[in-house]
Amino acid sequence: MSAAERIMARADELGAISETDGFLTRTHLSDAHRTAAKLVAGWMREAGLAVSTDAAGNVCGRIEGAAPDLPAVVLGSHIDTVPDAGKYDGPLGVLLAIEAVARLRAEAGALPFALEVVAFSDEEGTRFGSALSGSRAFAGAWDDAWWDYADADGKTLRQASLDYGLDPARIGDAARMPREIVAYLEAHIEQGPYLEQAGLPLAIVSSIAAARRFTIEITGHAGHAGGTPYELRRDALVGASELVVEIERIGQDLEVIATVGRLQAYPGGVNVIPGRVELSLDLRAEFDIDRDDAWARIQETADEIAALRDLEWSATEIYRADAVACDDELMAAVEASIAAAGVDDPLTLWSRAGHDAMAVADVADIGMLFVRNGNQGVSHSPDEIVTVDDVAVALDAFEATVRELAKRRG
Amino acid sequence: MSAAERIMARADELGAISETDGFLTRTHLSDAHRTAAKLVAGWMREAGLAVSTDAAGNVCGRIEGAAPDLPAVVLGSHIDTVPDAGKYDGPLGVLLAIEAVARLRAEAGALPFALEVVAFSDEEGTRFGSALSGSRAFAGAWDDAWWDYADADGKTLRQASLDYGLDPARIGDAARMPREIVAYLEAHIEQGPYLEQAGLPLAIVSSIAAARRFTIEITGHAGHAGGTPYELRRDALVGASELVVEIERIGQDLEVIATVGRLQAYPGGVNVIPGRVELSLDLRAEFDIDRDDAWARIQETADEIAALRDLEWSATEIYRADAVACDDELMAAVEASIAAAGVDDPLTLWSRAGHDAMAVADVADIGMLFVRNGNQGVSHSPDEIVTVDDVAVALDAFEATVRELAKRRG
Repeated sequence: MSAAERIMARADELGAISETDGFLTRTHLSDAHRTAAKLVAGWMREAGLAVSTDAAGNVCGRIEGAAPDLPAVVLGSHIDTVPDAGKYDGPLGVLLAIEAVARLRAEAGALPFALEVVAFSDEEGTRFGSALSGSRAFAGAWDDAWWDYADADGKTLRQASLDYGLDPARIGDAARMPREIVAYLEAHIEQGPYLEQAGLPLAIVSSIAAARRFTIEITGHAGHAGGTPYELRRDALVGASELVVEIERIGQDLEVIATVGRLQAYPGGVNVIPGRVELSLDLRAEFDIDRDDAWARIQETADEIAALRDLEWSATEIYRADAVACDDELMAAVEASIAAAGVDDPLTLWSRAGHDAMAVADVADIGMLFVRNGNQGVSHSPDEIVTVDDVAVALDAFEATVRELAKRRG
Repeated sequence: MSAAERIMARADELGAISETDGFLTRTHLSDAHRTAAKLVAGWMREAGLAVSTDAAGNVCGRIEGAAPDLPAVVLGSHIDTVPDAGKYDGPLGVLLAIEAVARLRAEAGALPFALEVVAFSDEEGTRFGSALSGSRAFAGAWDDAWWDYADADGKTLRQASLDYGLDPARIGDAARMPREIVAYLEAHIEQGPYLEQAGLPLAIVSSIAAARRFTIEITGHAGHAGGTPYELRRDALVGASELVVEIERIGQDLEVIATVGRLQAYPGGVNVIPGRVELSLDLRAEFDIDRDDAWARIQETADEIAALRDLEWSATEIYRADAVACDDELMAAVEASIAAAGVDDPLTLWSRAGHDAMAVADVADIGMLFVRNGNQGVSHSPDEIVTVDDVAVALDAFEATVRELAKRRG
């Protein structure tokens, strides 16, 4: 069995570890998480790594370099999933990291840095709403408010951590210092169609999206559909609909991805004019300024619609992440390694989705590579496709990136 | 206390009989309905009517004319309500009918017809979804499928009828023959702002709206908001939003009232492109052809949007009522009586809302008058306003209409 085949088999094995029947869901600190973490820890040990679990539930493996306690090149991704997930979003990066270290094991003692592999515990935030909490803990950006976040059954993250055998009082020990890390490298399945469209297996990642999310409420006045003529209507839904159409137009104009994923009209009677609409807005852009320009134009548009229709509107920001750039030198190393793996004229992409690398960027330079998703970029879905051939190329590139860093930093 | 003041006091008294605390809800065959029906029956008896309850729960009062068993002029409306209702929608017509008969009582024995007052049991259909079932039974248009309609607790209309003391096997006895009815007259609070805008207390009703209701489903493809570029999106919500905006435009163009009251996007994740939207459409027009033209244009528009956005859409018709015209002679009688009550240049309106008169039209000529709603036509709401002065004018006109009919048919 080739290393790439082993990665595919392990992705299948992890993909069968689920807390839901018939489809894959593996959330933070669940029994499925515990089972997956043990399996990953075992594979890390097989690859020669010394394994520990930190207080955030991250599984960390380490192999020393030319001297003890050198700063480390950290390779990682996450092992938690969304509900009804694919097998590769997260685990692929962890499995590639383990195999890359296995290949480097014999010469690890000659490298100018230690090697670490981290399987982050909670990237998706599915269970507690605490997205990136594993990598935030790793980066020393833990927020104690998260301990009180509760799952659907009312169990807090604190209690779930205790039940899992973790010690919340030691969360600070999970934090790494910048001096401890040479670089952070993450491989991830592309959550988009660009590699497939280009016919390429791998891409260099230039940055991770600038994002903002809002909940928007539009308020008019409910009334009897039969009794209220158009000139007296304050129909929140027609106003919201105009806004949804304009949000798409603004997104296309500014090359910002703007998505309204949730929209509901209230009170919701067939014969009642909607007096209120709630909708969500998700903005993603390569650069913060584009994202913020889009939001400014959306606000202006909402003001105009509200003025014309005698509506009121308000927005609450529920998430914000500024763009995180990948390090130029790491990008160059990734590019060289992709070329070395036989890909001419590789593609450079900015990541529309968030990744653990965003959090780790607080304490380390980051580099990322994307692996082709063979199904039009479908993501957060069991329809994700990765081929063994692409995994083989990705593994070569991932290993070569570490060697390239050893050359550059040696 | 004047008769108009008594009507106002009785509307208050009925308005306090509710199955919900703090707001008015009185649904078909509820305990509140039973209490209200008894009260109304008592007032009918005070006015000299012989009272019975039919198998649909309608309370029917009768006073004979110049001979026994003459066909009747029937005056009526309903005593059930929507949730969080106003006091006048329905009860005002019943109370006006009782007072009009009380005024005519002394001379009833000289009239060329009997007088009947009917308090219909179930116009709104709030509890079982069986709107107009009281007046449909009265018109011999009962549908046995309704017996199996269930309320939110799973109790069927059949069981609720038995519990109320009604005999489902006798539903056919509730039906009237055309030869038994001279005319049906209904007074109702206007569920619109036109009388208030015109500064008039009463209007002649020309017809009851042509209506159709649909459930529309628009289907695209759900996908990760970050990973799916605009050119690959099949966003059901942006398509639905375009349709909602166009529905308003088409309604305004064709003078059809088109309302989307319910709209929800699925799956509803903040970061997921909506793959499916469900929405409702309520169409009302004075004439069937305008209603149907609007629906044809809405279908064309939906086809265009679906073609441009690679969406699919389908519609299910859930309700259809053709326009019901008021009888010319009854309109003339109502007009003469409104003039006699001191209103020059009265307004003629078509009813945007449905009424028991629609159902009764199967077996009798119908006439209606509207009473001004003093709050911009707000309806299905405790904010309905009717003044004692308008009620006094309405009572005069209602009584005069019956006298006018006696003259014309005498």
